[in-house]
Amino acid sequence: MSFSVPVIPSIRGIPYGDRKRINDEARRREGVVDMGSGNPDLPMPPFIRRRLMEALNDGCARYTSYYGLPELREGIARKLSDQRGLSVNPERELLVTHGVQEALYVVMRALLGSGDEVLIPSPHYASYSLNATACGASAVPVPLREADGFSPDMELLERAVTPRTRALALTIPSNPLGVVWSREIVEALAELAIKHNLVVLVDEIYSDFVFGDPPISMGTLPGMKERTFTFNGFSKSFMMMGLRMGYVAGPSGPMEAIKNLHYCVTLCPTSLSQVAALAALECPEEQVEPIIREYLERLDILYNGVVSLPGVTCVRPGGTFYVFPNIKHFGMGSLELAIRLVKEVGVLTLPGTEFGPHGEGYLRLSTCTDRSAIKDGLQRLRQFAERYE
Amino acid sequence: MSFSVPVIPSIRGIPYGDRKRINDEARRREGVVDMGSGNPDLPMPPFIRRRLMEALNDGCARYTSYYGLPELREGIARKLSDQRGLSVNPERELLVTHGVQEALYVVMRALLGSGDEVLIPSPHYASYSLNATACGASAVPVPLREADGFSPDMELLERAVTPRTRALALTIPSNPLGVVWSREIVEALAELAIKHNLVVLVDEIYSDFVFGDPPISMGTLPGMKERTFTFNGFSKSFMMMGLRMGYVAGPSGPMEAIKNLHYCVTLCPTSLSQVAALAALECPEEQVEPIIREYLERLDILYNGVVSLPGVTCVRPGGTFYVFPNIKHFGMGSLELAIRLVKEVGVLTLPGTEFGPHGEGYLRLSTCTDRSAIKDGLQRLRQFAERYE
Repeated sequence: MSFSVPVIPSIRGIPYGDRKRINDEARRREGVVDMGSGNPDLPMPPFIRRRLMEALNDGCARYTSYYGLPELREGIARKLSDQRGLSVNPERELLVTHGVQEALYVVMRALLGSGDEVLIPSPHYASYSLNATACGASAVPVPLREADGFSPDMELLERAVTPRTRALALTIPSNPLGVVWSREIVEALAELAIKHNLVVLVDEIYSDFVFGDPPISMGTLPGMKERTFTFNGFSKSFMMMGLRMGYVAGPSGPMEAIKNLHYCVTLCPTSLSQVAALAALECPEEQVEPIIREYLERLDILYNGVVSLPGVTCVRPGGTFYVFPNIKHFGMGSLELAIRLVKEVGVLTLPGTEFGPHGEGYLRLSTCTDRSAIKDGLQRLRQFAERYE
Repeated sequence: MSFSVPVIPSIRGIPYGDRKRINDEARRREGVVDMGSGNPDLPMPPFIRRRLMEALNDGCARYTSYYGLPELREGIARKLSDQRGLSVNPERELLVTHGVQEALYVVMRALLGSGDEVLIPSPHYASYSLNATACGASAVPVPLREADGFSPDMELLERAVTPRTRALALTIPSNPLGVVWSREIVEALAELAIKHNLVVLVDEIYSDFVFGDPPISMGTLPGMKERTFTFNGFSKSFMMMGLRMGYVAGPSGPMEAIKNLHYCVTLCPTSLSQVAALAALECPEEQVEPIIREYLERLDILYNGVVSLPGVTCVRPGGTFYVFPNIKHFGMGSLELAIRLVKEVGVLTLPGTEFGPHGEGYLRLSTCTDRSAIKDGLQRLRQFAERYE
């Protein structure tokens, strides 16, 4: 008699992304230009690499404090205060995690039970809905419209609130939309959260990659600190994606339970990665600024190229690595278009539907390959678009 | 009106260990000998460090495949086949994780729902019960008795099975007991699992650290592959604890859901740590064997010292970093004794109760400090013990 291990429904319910299908298509071909991934291509600053090498001379790789090295948490608290205006106790209100991904998971898992609802202005970072599913909770995507410049419609959000709504999850600046919301919008969202007793999860991982001033940090607004979990990390600004160094700041009561869950999930963050994060805190500005400038310049090139494609419209990005063009003109679904772009012109993009159902009719393009590849990719997109003129 | 973020009951239920209290006591003092931690003190083999340095010359730290680099999974599958006799498909039956800790978490979380029960021969690795709690399930610790050499009593286990029993969780060789179960016992446990349709979770992280032959891998027994999740990693054998490189092999059906959960929890394993794991797979034997020999020799010293203490008995360890002496002679609870040992003779140990209620009356001592510290610690324990002669 054969035995099959049963998986509980909430975990069985986590979907695989279409991303896999498109990547499989791309892998079968030579010379595909990758305009899809959010996996940037530059190396880490030399300052950080040197510190890592020094740590390897010692050569020990012992477990660290479960919640991140105390000196790292202190450094992050100073950074949050200096750069984001957020005052955080490094012992009680801060946790170092395996990237923002782990932080999002442990916070959502600790706060969301079966039947709970999370409001998500959408298209949105897919993990918000995957995590909600994994918790037995429901993601409630509330559409952001191109006509509004992808700013939230407060009335729509208000109408989506039910007695089961527990949280509001946001990425500011936005992945996948590339937009940066104004202070007024952030204040309106905070007001909504206070009015309906919601917890706010706000991922600020792209806050260094903006053309203008960085957006206001929601946890600094009146009445918000006690209900806001602020996520950030070293992945993007220091090209440390693979080192998985994220963190979350939040109110001490729930953070205590979240830290216990974090221990169960990871035991401790990676030791060498924490060495890199400590180095990043001291990294000379002249090694970081060129990275940020490079991606912003690429974003300009990408945006200008995309809006010049026949039939394509696009909201101007305020920062991040992404633009989110409207491709409805081509008369097919996002997934079908993404697959055809791989097959017919060798360009890898992500269908907007990877970011929720409201992404239908859009693609996400990124700046994570170099300028010449971006230009080459744009040329190929033009070649495709011109068939539909 | 102030707002307090509510945490769901299962996560609120995860307890903090007493470990924290004892560590706090130790931190207040100078010159405490650490005989408690499972955090070994030797550096990584030079071969692995050199490979890491080479990777830093390139300097990119990009996201990797979510489930671990394909070449790493292939290498691990070969290693499992060669060293443990376990045949595993690297694409469908293997997942690289943030240490065994993450692997245990995602597997338990995917398989255990509210009200489910996990049989745990106990004293046991504490995360088994923490994870069960986090899943809303129940840990059912079944006592292992010193008089039986800490081998499981199959009748006791059998009697603990209920209609809600879903899994059996084991560490072979045992942390915290240091014992290595015979082939007959492993076969009897497998029989029990088959008879009651249980899933088996078996952590083999200490399988290189044994005096005799390594224990048989449960998944290789007839009828077991389809129900066994085998956990292992690079932490102990290669002194890579802080790099957090674990893995789990299990049946492909549930592994698909587990991989989706893993993506939500971590996105991908640490890139540099995977470079180290790839190097470990090729690490010259002469750089690994001395590490293993050193800890086994220390274990001999520790065991011989402990059994010569007046009033103390101890089951002879078959491997690992641990001995688990009986300290009932001193007439106080394990936690009280552990705290008094810090305060009165400056020795840090772990109370057996850190490993479940059946650990009452015992301490866990480890070989994770150098020989002179172990000898010093034993001297201090003798000094304490002699007061009770």
